Amino acid sequence: MLENIDVILFRPKYPENIGSVARACLNMGCGQIVLVEPWNWDQGKALPLATHHAGHLLENIRIHGTLAEALAPYSFAYGTTARTGGWRQGIQTPEEAAPRIIEQSNAGAKVAIVFGPEDKGLTNEETDLCNQLLTIPTTDNLTSLNLSQAVMVVLYECFKKSLAKPFKVAGQPKDRYISSEEREVLFNQLRETLIEIDFLNKDNPEYFMLPLKRFFNRINPRLNEYNLLMGLCRQMRRIVGIAKNNRS
Amino acid sequence: MLENIDVILFRPKYPENIGSVARACLNMGCGQIVLVEPWNWDQGKALPLATHHAGHLLENIRIHGTLAEALAPYSFAYGTTARTGGWRQGIQTPEEAAPRIIEQSNAGAKVAIVFGPEDKGLTNEETDLCNQLLTIPTTDNLTSLNLSQAVMVVLYECFKKSLAKPFKVAGQPKDRYISSEEREVLFNQLRETLIEIDFLNKDNPEYFMLPLKRFFNRINPRLNEYNLLMGLCRQMRRIVGIAKNNRS
Repeated sequence: MLENIDVILFRPKYPENIGSVARACLNMGCGQIVLVEPWNWDQGKALPLATHHAGHLLENIRIHGTLAEALAPYSFAYGTTARTGGWRQGIQTPEEAAPRIIEQSNAGAKVAIVFGPEDKGLTNEETDLCNQLLTIPTTDNLTSLNLSQAVMVVLYECFKKSLAKPFKVAGQPKDRYISSEEREVLFNQLRETLIEIDFLNKDNPEYFMLPLKRFFNRINPRLNEYNLLMGLCRQMRRIVGIAKNNRS
Repeated sequence: MLENIDVILFRPKYPENIGSVARACLNMGCGQIVLVEPWNWDQGKALPLATHHAGHLLENIRIHGTLAEALAPYSFAYGTTARTGGWRQGIQTPEEAAPRIIEQSNAGAKVAIVFGPEDKGLTNEETDLCNQLLTIPTTDNLTSLNLSQAVMVVLYECFKKSLAKPFKVAGQPKDRYISSEEREVLFNQLRETLIEIDFLNKDNPEYFMLPLKRFFNRINPRLNEYNLLMGLCRQMRRIVGIAKNNRS
């Protein structure tokens, strides 16, 4: 899906975070992880967080000594930052940038998304090498995200945009909403049933039907629910029939 | 922002994950973390991942012995799952569900988002207690997300929706949504009533209640609708009483 999009981690500190990043990359279909000057890189510490599923992403990691060298093969580089002060202009949210990222990668361009070290993020020296800056919306209480969570959010936005058709959950019910004709049939059936069980006043049933009608108009029944309710009414009327027959 | 939305972690295994969840909660402004039967809960192991910023969220954690007990005060519970087989109907993505979650929490309702254990996720026993299931779109290569990343994605979608000012119709009914405790009372009353009118099979009423429960979970009854339905059940049971008395 996102095979032209790579994740570049600049001076990451904790191998465990890199493991979590690998798992996120596999979840979202991102192609490659590149490390620049990693501190204490240890594949063994990263693997448990990656799970064995994403182990191959750790094995294929490329490591570079400078960001400029790492970015050389990419047509576009998006830097991420939690600092959105006025001095950093034209910053976009991942949601805003995702359509262009996907357009570029679909056109065959290699796209890098660059994340800074856990404690300090990217400095101007690194962001100067990027074409565009991204920031993830947060509350003001804590603007800095965990590294792997930041990677997840950016890739997740790209993944959503990469799906030509919006992601459809398998097995969703196909049931259509009922028509207004069916709604009238249902209201009539309900009115008659509720009169028969003395729940509605015979003299002015429409008035007492109002809250029920409002209820059903709010919920927009589907066909299977319509069938359920019609069946329930039939059974109630059958019971009333028994009560009346026994009474007479 | 999301102060009426709480994160419920069912049987979480690793305190470090709970720390990462706390940080994500502070990033997105979520109110409270609730643990149900945590394994090896250790605040000291969680704190480094939470960072000192989110330490207060760990200190204020509530712990419960059962999910039902944990969910009692919430009007809405959203369960999360990576399993989207046809047998789990009506699942939504976080993006699809977020507008309704924000609408509910803006209306003052308490909303729970429930996440299962890292290795197995939620089983049917737990999802039966939820009103709605959510699944995060992924590639087919790895559908299961790291726990704290899953929390981040769901809260992030809610946070984004919460930034838009909600459109408020003047004079909208003030009626609150019913709580999960009230929903249980309603389900019990419905089950007994439908058994009495021979609409539900006495031998396996739970099975036949499922479509009805799905229906009610979809429509989220309000207090006035709850009163209407409870009154309707009482009247049906009165009629059945008459039928039985006449029969004997």
